[in-house]
Amino acid sequence: MSLRGLAVDPRCRCIETESRRIGKHIKSVELFPPSPHCKDLEIIATLMTTGQEICLDPSAPWVKKIIDRIIVKKP
Amino acid sequence: MSLRGLAVDPRCRCIETESRRIGKHIKSVELFPPSPHCKDLEIIATLMTTGQEICLDPSAPWVKKIIDRIIVKKP
Repeated sequence: MSLRGLAVDPRCRCIETESRRIGKHIKSVELFPPSPHCKDLEIIATLMTTGQEICLDPSAPWVKKIIDRIIVKKP
Repeated sequence: MSLRGLAVDPRCRCIETESRRIGKHIKSVELFPPSPHCKDLEIIATLMTTGQEICLDPSAPWVKKIIDRIIVKKP
């Protein structure tokens, strides 16, 4: 399973992050808080159509907006 | 892989949600926005020690607090 930007090294999962705004294509978002294995917060989105996993930049405002929109959105 | 509270039915993943505050035990949190398959926002935490996946209540204030703490926390 080739995971764009995901590290092979078990410590941190992300090598690079996606700069394009892919909000509309996101099926799920997984948050990995800093841990003994990786000192960085990592945010990995799974894309709807391909199921591909893509690292998002935790410091990018649009990423936080997506997360806020997901958890605040009322059906 | 027995997933506490997770549905066998592919539509929604969660049948029940965890009411105890398990913030300290969380390795990662995955957010599943409402979709054609499931009209509910679903939040699934993976526990550190066991790797067990547990559904969290999206409407519980402590759950939102955990997510905010994860994405706002600076290392």
